[in-house]
Order: sequence, then structure tokens, then C-alpha cells
Amino acid sequence: MSFAFDIQARDGRARSGVLRTTRGDIRTPAFMPVGTAATVKAMRPESVRETGADILLGNTYHLMLRPGAERIARLGGLHRFMNWDGPILTDSGGFQVMSLASLRKLTEAGVRFSSHIDGSKHVLSPESSMEIQRLLGSDIVMAFDECPALPADKARIAASMRLSMRWAQRSRDAFGDRPGHALFGIQQGGLARDLREESAEALRAIGFDGYAIGGLAVGEGQAAMFEVLDHAPQMLPEDRPRYLMGVGKPDDIVGAVLRGVDMFDCVLPSRSGRTGQAWTRRGPVNLRNARHRDDPRPLDESCTCPACRGYSRAYLHHVTRADEIIGSMLLTWHNLQYYQDLMAGLRQAIADGDLAGFIAAFDRQRAEGDIEPL
Amino acid sequence: MSFAFDIQARDGRARSGVLRTTRGDIRTPAFMPVGTAATVKAMRPESVRETGADILLGNTYHLMLRPGAERIARLGGLHRFMNWDGPILTDSGGFQVMSLASLRKLTEAGVRFSSHIDGSKHVLSPESSMEIQRLLGSDIVMAFDECPALPADKARIAASMRLSMRWAQRSRDAFGDRPGHALFGIQQGGLARDLREESAEALRAIGFDGYAIGGLAVGEGQAAMFEVLDHAPQMLPEDRPRYLMGVGKPDDIVGAVLRGVDMFDCVLPSRSGRTGQAWTRRGPVNLRNARHRDDPRPLDESCTCPACRGYSRAYLHHVTRADEIIGSMLLTWHNLQYYQDLMAGLRQAIADGDLAGFIAAFDRQRAEGDIEPL
Repeated sequence: MSFAFDIQARDGRARSGVLRTTRGDIRTPAFMPVGTAATVKAMRPESVRETGADILLGNTYHLMLRPGAERIARLGGLHRFMNWDGPILTDSGGFQVMSLASLRKLTEAGVRFSSHIDGSKHVLSPESSMEIQRLLGSDIVMAFDECPALPADKARIAASMRLSMRWAQRSRDAFGDRPGHALFGIQQGGLARDLREESAEALRAIGFDGYAIGGLAVGEGQAAMFEVLDHAPQMLPEDRPRYLMGVGKPDDIVGAVLRGVDMFDCVLPSRSGRTGQAWTRRGPVNLRNARHRDDPRPLDESCTCPACRGYSRAYLHHVTRADEIIGSMLLTWHNLQYYQDLMAGLRQAIADGDLAGFIAAFDRQRAEGDIEPL
Repeated sequence: MSFAFDIQARDGRARSGVLRTTRGDIRTPAFMPVGTAATVKAMRPESVRETGADILLGNTYHLMLRPGAERIARLGGLHRFMNWDGPILTDSGGFQVMSLASLRKLTEAGVRFSSHIDGSKHVLSPESSMEIQRLLGSDIVMAFDECPALPADKARIAASMRLSMRWAQRSRDAFGDRPGHALFGIQQGGLARDLREESAEALRAIGFDGYAIGGLAVGEGQAAMFEVLDHAPQMLPEDRPRYLMGVGKPDDIVGAVLRGVDMFDCVLPSRSGRTGQAWTRRGPVNLRNARHRDDPRPLDESCTCPACRGYSRAYLHHVTRADEIIGSMLLTWHNLQYYQDLMAGLRQAIADGDLAGFIAAFDRQRAEGDIEPL
């Protein structure tokens, strides 16, 4: 095992702890902001750090196409390139190649595709994904997997999962022994409990430094996702971090932590910040709405981010409607701050043994509505 | 006079000093970043302050249309609205209404026009411009003037200048007595020395807290502008600040300071920052150019801004080509830092009595080219 994972407290199935990497500790449950193209959009990395983020996620698919993994390696690796000295997790490219690339051809060997940027031809396979993630200098490398488009019948899901498990073995073999770097396997199997169990067994047999739950948050809805999470995390090794990929809304994260998940990533807080949508303790707030036009109050009076300390809702409404870059900058910062504050609250609640109380307060605040009428 | 203006050093016609406002000192020669719509685009105001800016410029035309001057007044004024507690100068709206608005009708009374945003009808006159700038809470208010489109014959320039002088008197009358706020008059007269003299006489007779040189940097070219500046600043009161509106490139500013100008504003550094263009001691650099693709060196090794301290030219090239917001953020910061460093260098050179040496070094550095080949 490359990185020590110290579970420091438990409350039911939920755990809080620290994953110790060579580039710094990751406090879990952890939310990883997404820095797709070597930037968390509209944020300087110093600001991302200020929100309390311990680790970023980079997208292998985007970076291999532009500026290119070899180029980033020549320039000293992704950390130096994007000016982030904390840990970075890179995905394998498997999800994005299926959702963004054109002219895809999937075989046992891997995926041939054309770039969505310039049409150039590329190949992703377990071996090339490991090599690209090595060139990037990723601290936590994800095994290369296939994400089947949903809805799909069980036979298709099963075949896809078994392909991903063969690719997981090839990823493990290609990754080799890299002290100071970790490799995570990805459980697949859709919504089927027996396939999730089969996948988990295959991954445990190979042996990884951490285990992701893949193939969720792809349109199945929260209830179906929670049904999977009622059993899937328990199928994975108790002593290693569990990472739910691409999740999610604040209440998705709370429900997943309750069910034993340790790590998350999602574009939602940063993407929302660029469209005038804020996430707060009182639920989502659309700053483009005219009701904020004359509101002198901060977005969230209890938040410590620059948007809430320095500006009124009226200002955030104005810059959002006027498509000013500072609107994206301030709302992205706020949203990432809210997400990190939520994770800190969950960690503290687990340490205090009062996750139930935290969740009751979380639900109550959201039910109150986003703010009183002026 | 509302604000004391202490001229602390002279070198030839150039002066350095301090304009003391109720919201803080403005070191001159000063460059004012432009915050058109209540934001210096892609910058938080704390960052603008970090570059060394003492004062911002706001655009009356944009703010009256969106979010509206009355709204800003109800929200506590422009300073609180945009989270900038230093001095703010607002233009009169005269220039923008002629360049941006549609369905303009110009009379002795003022200008009727339709908003370029939503087509709504508005009026700008000396009296309404003073009222709007009062509602915004501007520290330095500009008299309302007309800027004739160039090229125009001398009779047209003369008639326009005389209208602006009648409007200057009405601006002065409407402004009244507002302790803690200053009113600047604007000299017009195009490239004609006799018209510039007539305009300066009219303004001096009315009496203002400062004097702007208007109607330049509208396509006449640097040589023609410098010919005007060889005499125009000397026509204005020696003991009050002189402000050259809408200027300019770094070498425009250096030449204007040499000729006795104290204040400047221009969108160039911020606008350039959003299109991949950087301004440096070695001249302009287009980061979109492929030659930067693999360059590990900073944009300017002697610059202290975050773009130069944290990133390679290769990274700036990447984020500029990928249209990432951080590209606009970093290059705008750099450009504003460069402009403020240039002003600080000019102030020091004047204090040292070596403006000629400074300008020689300025020209030499630019002649060397932006960087050695890799």
C-alpha cells in the first residue's frame, strides 16, 4: 500500500480519517474540486487551497489532447504546470472518452477515438492510460475502465463490467511498483447487486491502494444510487479509501458519507458558479433571479468566502446578469467553499459521533428556504 | 479646491506628486484601471489594489443603464457595491454615449439615446450626468462633454468644443459645492492649438479641481497626439492635476508624462489580458503564439505578479488557447501590474531627476525583444 489511510473515527458505516500522501494529507470524507484542463475554472490554485481543498482532480482525456501528457512531463509534471503542490488524482480517461470523443471504436485492447478539439486520432488502453497518468505525475492514478451508457440491459452491464475487470488487471500490471503513487481500482456493475459483488471480488483479488465506485450518477436518480450505496461500499476493503466518482449534489454527498464513502469529485460547484447558481446551507440559489436585484444582504451571512464577505446579492445578481468574469470567480469560490465547509462539518460530526444530528440540521436548514423575503 | 495636490518633484515638464482625496492618496503620475460595469474585468478589487493601483475609473454610461445609478445609491454607493474603498473617478458618459448608444439625438440640452443593452430610452445632459455621478458616490466627477467623431473639419471641432465649454459651465453649476468630491473639466479642440487654447481659457475661467485633456487617442496616431501634448498641458493650471483620458500604450504614457501629464486611464491592459496579449518591460507578447508552447520560462522573470511567479509561458499559452478563465485572470493581473510598475518607475525617476535615463532604459529594453529564443 503506497499511502497510509488512518481511519480516526466511525459513526455507523461512516468514517473520517486521513489519507497520507507524499504531497500532503487528505482529510476524509474529502471533496476534490475538478481541474479538467489544468485549472479549476475561474479559480487560482491558491484560492482553491484557501477553501480547504486537500486534493484536486485532473482529467486524463482533456490533458492528453491539450496540451499533451509528454509536454506536461517535459515541463516538470502537472503539479508544477498548474501551480498546485498538493496531491492530484487523475481519472483514467475512460469516462470522458465515451462521453466526449467522436468516432470511438471499442475493442478488448482499448478505445480508438478522435479528439473533440481537433479531430486528431488517439488510443486509450489500460497501458496507455497508465503511461499518460505517469507522465502527468498523478499521485492517485485510476485504473482504466469502460462506462457503459445507460439505460443498458443487464447482459450489457455485465459484459462491460467484466471487460473493466480485465482492464483493471492490465492497469495493475502496467502501473507496476511506483513508490509515492497509488493506484485505485473502479467497481462497476450498474444497479445490480450481484454484478457489484462480482466486480468487488475481482478488484480485491487484484489488490489496489483504494477503491472507487463507478458507473453511478449517470442519470439513475438519487434513490437508485442510494440503494446501490446501501451495499456497494461494504463490498470493498474496509481499510482502504472508497471513492464515489462524479458525485454530486450536497445531499448526494451527505447520503453517501452516511453509507461509508470517503472521497468525492464533481464539476457541479464550479460549473454552477459559472451560470449564476450558488449552493448554500439553505439550498441552491439562482443569482440571476430578479428578486436579488435590490437585496443588500450577503449570499450567506455565515459563509467566510470573499463573495459572502465583500458583496451583496444585488452585486452578484448584477455581475451574473452582465456576464462579468468576476461573477464566475466569486460564485465558484463560494460554491467550493460551501462544499469544503460541508465536508469539514461531516468530518467533525463523525468525530463527535453525531452524524445523525448533523444530517437533521442539514435537512432543516435546507427546508427553511434560501433567505427571508426582504 | 476639494483635494490638495502636492507636487513633490519636477523633471523638465514632468511632475510627480500626491493628490489627497478623502478616500486615500493618489500617487501621480497615476494609472487608473477601468472598472466599467462595477468590476475591473477578471480581477477581484483586492488584487487590483495589490498591483499598486490607488484609484479606479467607473463608466457612468454603463452603470446608469445597468444596474442603474439610483439602485447603486440605494445599495450604499459604488464603492460599497463593488467592494473598493479607495477613490473612484467616473467619466461623464459623454464619450460612451457617442460610441455605444443607438438612436442618438444631440441638442444644446444634451443627448437622447437608446441603451445598447435593452433599447430603453435615456437622456444625458450636464445636469443628469452630475446627478448620476453624485448617486454613484464618485470621488472625482468629470464634466459632461461631447466628443466629436474624427476625422472632422475644424469648424465642426470648434463648434463641438464650444458646446462642451457651455456644458462645462452647466456641469460646474449643477455640481455645486460638494466637500470631499472633486469636479474635473475637460479640454477639447482636437489637434488645433488655437482651439485647445480657447478651451483651456474657458475652463480656467470656470474653475475646476483638475483638468482633463479629452479628444485624443481616437485614431490620430502617437505623433499627432504628442504634438498636441507638446503644448496642451501647459495651457492648464500648473497647480492642479492634468488627466489624459483613455491613454494608452506604455510608450504613449511615458511620452505624456514627459510632457506634463499626471493621470491616465485605459482599458488596454485589462482588455489585452482577455485576448492573450501581455505587456512587459520588453514590449508586447502574444501568448497565443505557438513559440510559447514548450517554454518553461516565466512571462517576465523580473515581474512580481502571480502570473510571472507561478506559471510558465507554456502554461499561459495553454490556458489562453483553451479559453480558460484563469488565462484572463492571470494576464489581466500581469498587465495591470506592469502598468503600475511603470508608473512607479516614472514617479521614482522624476523624484530622482533622471526621467531621461529612465526613458532611455525603457526604450532599450523594448528594443531587445521580448525574450531570447529557447
